[in-house]
Amino acid sequence: MDDFKKIDSYLYKNFNKSISELSTYVAQPSISAQNIGLKECAQLVKEMLMVRGFKARVMETEGAPVVYAERKGKSDKTLLIYNHYDVQPPEPLELWESPPFEPSLRGDKLYGRGVSDDKSHLTARLFAIDAILDTDGELPCNIKFIIEGEEETSSVHLHGFIKENLELLKADACIWEFGGVDHREVPMQYLGLRGICYVELSVESLGTDVHSGLGGSIFPNAAWRLVWALNSLKGPDERIRIPGFYDNIVPPSARDRELMNALPDVAEVYKKQFGVKEFIKGLKGGTDLKMEEVFTPTCTICGLTSGYQGPGSKTVQPAFASAKVDFRLVPGQKPEDIVAKLRLHLDNEGFSDIQVTLLGGEPAARTDPDDPFIKIVVDTAEEVFESPMEIVPMIGGSGPNYPFVHDLGLPVATMGHGYPDTRAHAPNENIRLDLYLKHAQHMARVIKEFAK
Amino acid sequence: MDDFKKIDSYLYKNFNKSISELSTYVAQPSISAQNIGLKECAQLVKEMLMVRGFKARVMETEGAPVVYAERKGKSDKTLLIYNHYDVQPPEPLELWESPPFEPSLRGDKLYGRGVSDDKSHLTARLFAIDAILDTDGELPCNIKFIIEGEEETSSVHLHGFIKENLELLKADACIWEFGGVDHREVPMQYLGLRGICYVELSVESLGTDVHSGLGGSIFPNAAWRLVWALNSLKGPDERIRIPGFYDNIVPPSARDRELMNALPDVAEVYKKQFGVKEFIKGLKGGTDLKMEEVFTPTCTICGLTSGYQGPGSKTVQPAFASAKVDFRLVPGQKPEDIVAKLRLHLDNEGFSDIQVTLLGGEPAARTDPDDPFIKIVVDTAEEVFESPMEIVPMIGGSGPNYPFVHDLGLPVATMGHGYPDTRAHAPNENIRLDLYLKHAQHMARVIKEFAK
Repeated sequence: MDDFKKIDSYLYKNFNKSISELSTYVAQPSISAQNIGLKECAQLVKEMLMVRGFKARVMETEGAPVVYAERKGKSDKTLLIYNHYDVQPPEPLELWESPPFEPSLRGDKLYGRGVSDDKSHLTARLFAIDAILDTDGELPCNIKFIIEGEEETSSVHLHGFIKENLELLKADACIWEFGGVDHREVPMQYLGLRGICYVELSVESLGTDVHSGLGGSIFPNAAWRLVWALNSLKGPDERIRIPGFYDNIVPPSARDRELMNALPDVAEVYKKQFGVKEFIKGLKGGTDLKMEEVFTPTCTICGLTSGYQGPGSKTVQPAFASAKVDFRLVPGQKPEDIVAKLRLHLDNEGFSDIQVTLLGGEPAARTDPDDPFIKIVVDTAEEVFESPMEIVPMIGGSGPNYPFVHDLGLPVATMGHGYPDTRAHAPNENIRLDLYLKHAQHMARVIKEFAK
Repeated sequence: MDDFKKIDSYLYKNFNKSISELSTYVAQPSISAQNIGLKECAQLVKEMLMVRGFKARVMETEGAPVVYAERKGKSDKTLLIYNHYDVQPPEPLELWESPPFEPSLRGDKLYGRGVSDDKSHLTARLFAIDAILDTDGELPCNIKFIIEGEEETSSVHLHGFIKENLELLKADACIWEFGGVDHREVPMQYLGLRGICYVELSVESLGTDVHSGLGGSIFPNAAWRLVWALNSLKGPDERIRIPGFYDNIVPPSARDRELMNALPDVAEVYKKQFGVKEFIKGLKGGTDLKMEEVFTPTCTICGLTSGYQGPGSKTVQPAFASAKVDFRLVPGQKPEDIVAKLRLHLDNEGFSDIQVTLLGGEPAARTDPDDPFIKIVVDTAEEVFESPMEIVPMIGGSGPNYPFVHDLGLPVATMGHGYPDTRAHAPNENIRLDLYLKHAQHMARVIKEFAK
């Protein structure tokens, strides 16, 4: 491990330069949900790769472009690194302590929209590559990057892109976009992601909004239609009522429960961090809470909108209403099947007036905890984090790992510098600088061990 | 009726001057729901009255001020005229063909927020008074004005104001803020208004919005809590489920049904005008539709808001959700009683986490169709509109007529120049200039007949 002294020394000395590059990257808005700044950001990413000697190109899709890059190395092995350059919308703006697209360094943290999810993960990995090139003059293996711009809108075109570019993306293993430490500062290896099926439900009940004194007794009300349709999907017992929704689910194994059981309890952490007074379904904590969090599918209302929403009262009967609904899927469920069952259910329940628009979908996928590549990533963490990684068989979030696992046939390892208060998707998103450095150190070690 | 030749001649000659005064009045925003421009507008109204020789003053309340004015006349009789200077919020702005607070004359119509509801009704009445003063040199009876600034937010402080000023407001009859013709151009006499109980339901389920991949399976979701609470209030059968909601209701009489039956069918008009494909409750038209429209209480969702409402998808579990809910009440129901029953119902159904805020309330009230003052207003319409007024025993809208009927003990007559496409509370609110002139003519006749 002698060569890591030089590498670590490079990382200490050049730290500010990497944070400066990250700040420039964060200052470029790239909001996929609102189609803001995507082309500009893809161009910026391409340039960041080219200055490292990568052959990089911006490849068009029907949505946001994908940045692809590769650089040859000493061994025949190929590592594929997946990141995304798009970010969540910054709203609600009034809750940010500094403007979301003006990166702000306060104490040992850097704040900004997308700073954690996922822009810093790309720059920290480039920083590790800089250190290897500076120390060894070459890469120890081939490295490919695939950096998409639609991760925050369910990666609508990525699956198709991968299917069309199987040869280009051929590799032996894959590093996922994110990772991090838990509340005990222990680095975590997340080996599976739930799938997602994100839909918008909308209804138009009248040609125009109407004075509520006139229409209330006799005209259909879009907001009521939406409420009743939503209520037909899930009741206070939290059971999803769409017939067939739970069909074909692959239940967690005894090994999964064993791995989950080995992880620390999260109940008190969640209560404190998110202001949860009581968990749903009577959950109190322990392994049951942890299992429920990731191994059950969900039906979450992410947004509701109808009629007048300003201060005070407006007596109007709304002609239009809509809801954003996010289903998280577990292994065995397929988004296209869920949408079809949702449509059928709404029709059968008398809600054929409710329009369903699929905004994004991806099935769940998992990597085998016993894959040799996973062992490399888990073991190399110890020197940097003073603890080996703990293996989490699956997490509650989603991402497009299905085509990496099932189309490219790769083991997919997570690593990164997220931490419990990183506020991804929320105001005041931030990273801790000490963890950023550790991720770069860990990355350099993974690349070199993998190349052997 | 010889003297009306002079009066009508004055109205024809000075028409543009009155429309100009109305335009100035509309150009002053006065949005009670958003607390915009109310004091400025009250001052403007006071000046409009003072130039007619009225003793006028702006009287403070705990909300928007009330403008009170009086001028003595020849007889001992006193007519009280009620108007309001506040207007509905102009949103959604993108649907206006001209800016809402820049009155725009197009063809035979004047467009602007509040132009119909209710600013033109005040200026047309002042215009009638101008004509009488110009012709006769004095008023034939005492006239008092009460012009409030909270009608569009349920007149929260008007009832208290009237109770505290019973002597000041003493009169023999009252003219209501609005009125108009129906789709056949027949002037209508509306003799009752439903009550209202307008509440905001809100819920906070977490300390902060959370990534929906994390919280969906285990944290309470504010939007779901709201949907389930709303669903407990009313189902697709349109029956309101709050226990005791229908108690004490005074049902319509045989006379009410007879009067409603005499009115023209509205089904086709509504379908065309508001884009209604089907009425609720299986209603098809005829007297049943007309009776249902006004003699049943309602529970209308006027607005819904929670989480992300922009374009595309955002995977967030919202910490906060709220709904605006408007109950229209029929005679016998009291808003404070309805709020108490709503609170109890939510608690009993497991929704004690839902906050209820009362934003405004007023009971229903009705005037006897056989009152002699009503006969004057109905009969004098014929000379102007070429048809006597048709009597509607009650309408679906609300207003603070309860204290006028029950505290001041007055018969309350409606008259005005509304018409079916006037778009009160909606974008492109407008008045027809021909009807504006007719309302001024009718008003002059009512004042002179009443004074006798």
